[in-house]
Amino acid sequence: MTSQFKNKNSLTYKNPMIGIIGGGQLARMMILEAHAFGLQTYLFCQSPDEPAAQVCQNIIYQGDDFDKNFLVFLSKITHLTFESEFYNLQPFEKSIKKNQVFVFPSLDNLKRIQYRDLQKELLKQYHIPTSDFIKVTHPDDLYLAQKQLGLPFVLKKTIGGYDGYGTFILKTKNDLKKWLLTHSLSEPYIAEKWVLFKQELAITFIRSKKGDIFYYPLVKSYQVDHRCDWVIGPTDHPKLKQLRSKIIKLLNGVDYVGAITFELFESDQLLVNEMAPRVHNTAHYTLDAYTHSQFLMHLLSGVTRSTLPKPVQLSPFFAMINLIGPKKGQLKPVTLKAGLVHWYGKKISKPGRKMGHINYLKHSSPNNLFKNLLKQAQNDRKLFRS
Amino acid sequence: MTSQFKNKNSLTYKNPMIGIIGGGQLARMMILEAHAFGLQTYLFCQSPDEPAAQVCQNIIYQGDDFDKNFLVFLSKITHLTFESEFYNLQPFEKSIKKNQVFVFPSLDNLKRIQYRDLQKELLKQYHIPTSDFIKVTHPDDLYLAQKQLGLPFVLKKTIGGYDGYGTFILKTKNDLKKWLLTHSLSEPYIAEKWVLFKQELAITFIRSKKGDIFYYPLVKSYQVDHRCDWVIGPTDHPKLKQLRSKIIKLLNGVDYVGAITFELFESDQLLVNEMAPRVHNTAHYTLDAYTHSQFLMHLLSGVTRSTLPKPVQLSPFFAMINLIGPKKGQLKPVTLKAGLVHWYGKKISKPGRKMGHINYLKHSSPNNLFKNLLKQAQNDRKLFRS
Repeated sequence: MTSQFKNKNSLTYKNPMIGIIGGGQLARMMILEAHAFGLQTYLFCQSPDEPAAQVCQNIIYQGDDFDKNFLVFLSKITHLTFESEFYNLQPFEKSIKKNQVFVFPSLDNLKRIQYRDLQKELLKQYHIPTSDFIKVTHPDDLYLAQKQLGLPFVLKKTIGGYDGYGTFILKTKNDLKKWLLTHSLSEPYIAEKWVLFKQELAITFIRSKKGDIFYYPLVKSYQVDHRCDWVIGPTDHPKLKQLRSKIIKLLNGVDYVGAITFELFESDQLLVNEMAPRVHNTAHYTLDAYTHSQFLMHLLSGVTRSTLPKPVQLSPFFAMINLIGPKKGQLKPVTLKAGLVHWYGKKISKPGRKMGHINYLKHSSPNNLFKNLLKQAQNDRKLFRS
Repeated sequence: MTSQFKNKNSLTYKNPMIGIIGGGQLARMMILEAHAFGLQTYLFCQSPDEPAAQVCQNIIYQGDDFDKNFLVFLSKITHLTFESEFYNLQPFEKSIKKNQVFVFPSLDNLKRIQYRDLQKELLKQYHIPTSDFIKVTHPDDLYLAQKQLGLPFVLKKTIGGYDGYGTFILKTKNDLKKWLLTHSLSEPYIAEKWVLFKQELAITFIRSKKGDIFYYPLVKSYQVDHRCDWVIGPTDHPKLKQLRSKIIKLLNGVDYVGAITFELFESDQLLVNEMAPRVHNTAHYTLDAYTHSQFLMHLLSGVTRSTLPKPVQLSPFFAMINLIGPKKGQLKPVTLKAGLVHWYGKKISKPGRKMGHINYLKHSSPNNLFKNLLKQAQNDRKLFRS
């Protein structure tokens, strides 16, 4: 398979075939955006019913033998990316090199972020504000955490926790004891200082192989049950500029390639809560509010050897609201007059499952814009209940 | 298969499965837009290499037995539409009814437009300005045309001509004689009065099953070798309002459902040159310059029982330039800084083949906006040559 690395014209790429691991909505949106732009994709997923499989012609199924099938997949592609950071591809490093497949973000950078302790250390290394933490591998560490970080503190799995899964808030000494009785420390954790924050924020960066950097604006994000529920933007913060330049130093420092979202806590300062080395729910608004979405920019950042495009904001204000499967009943797609519906095609609506999202663009800015937008969004969302 | 007609809630549709005939770029863009919105599609095309097949999971191939395979296709779908108006589906009318498949635009309306003489009569019926014409089925008709319409006049196949194919300009009496010696009148033609026009224009309408109508703005279109080369907009004309209201009467009169583009000649008045009962090259700008593209609106117009969305213009000025295979060499996809690339994934770049297009959005309006835009577009276009 011809790889783009053989092509010397810096403006072009030669028949890249982008492999994507994972069949969910993030992969689906990457594939839809890739195809509109003319980028070819190959999917490595589990079932033809998955959101991404429905929109892709080239699929290798993971099946019972992930390793064997992954090698077949590798032979088909020139580039490789993911919709989740929780794949362990270290065992395939040699095969990836042999197949001349360009992985973005790189396995090294993935590891730096997969491991919460390494992620924290990376942030500290670049003087990026983040809450204090302690590694927890032994019960004694928990009591040390209590002493050093105070109560309450947050306990997170070092690897693999997300959206509230693998995350615990320990409020009292009794909570510590209980937790130790009901959980094992065979897997490592980190304890993080509890942060009293006014607001959760997020910002998404794209960095290309060549070193071009683009960032979307700072947005406010609202969680329900530890999951992103809705996002509005743009917003600003006195410390934003400073934070951005530190983040840019970090991305350049580790030669990061791809999209990356920084989830932030707003207090007096801007604290980084987490980094997500992939396309991210808090940047879904870019599908409509910008000329170039995070999905296209992520793929281009790994594929193009030319300068990255400069996305242009199409609407001064925007909002995104998730369509999450309710506890009772189902969600179904509907047509809205103004809201821009993105539906993931999941076969079954389950409680808590992200079924789609709606983007809103607003050109005028009344004082109560966001309230009105949210009211509309919440009314619209009701229509999706069957 | 459950059809939406059984669903009484006017806001929702129930699992529509939209069948699309044809595997080209128009089908591809319809499918990409459908999937982003969560509409399910089934494709009836010729080969897995075709632009639309690359982005669709559900495909029935036309194969050697079109009729037999079409019946299988019909059994899979609830709605049916096309990327070309030149299919003859009359023989399948009974099977379509039996399968409760909703066809849009309807076969009746398709016929009214497929036949150039019927199309002309339809326009006249609604007092929509169009050039005079004469049906030509016998050599004598040609001489009558010369007498009544004057020289030069335009000769077009009554059925199936497009993009200059099946179209002849007869300038002299000698041309008439030559034409008769080299062509047969076994297929009918129409002769149209030659129109001296300043500019070609186009306007695209969407009309839903429920009768909602949306129209995109008037745009200027420029042809090279009888093919659309680029489009800029919006533009205006003193007679536009009057023309629009006549067109709306026509669409309501024939209960038209779907997208339809009116290609216009600008002289003292606005003359309709042709109607295209489908998504159209002159409205490709809607993919970026509007919140809802012609592709999505076309599909929604046939599927949704609710009010149509109201597309919002995202940029005060826009342009679209086609990427057409050059006589020598190939076109390849490249990344642009500002232009929004849409690439159709055709396996081979052939002379005259539409390989993709670029959309441009402009928010400021210098006097020479369009010149600058075109200069940029033409420079960008050169980058696609390999």
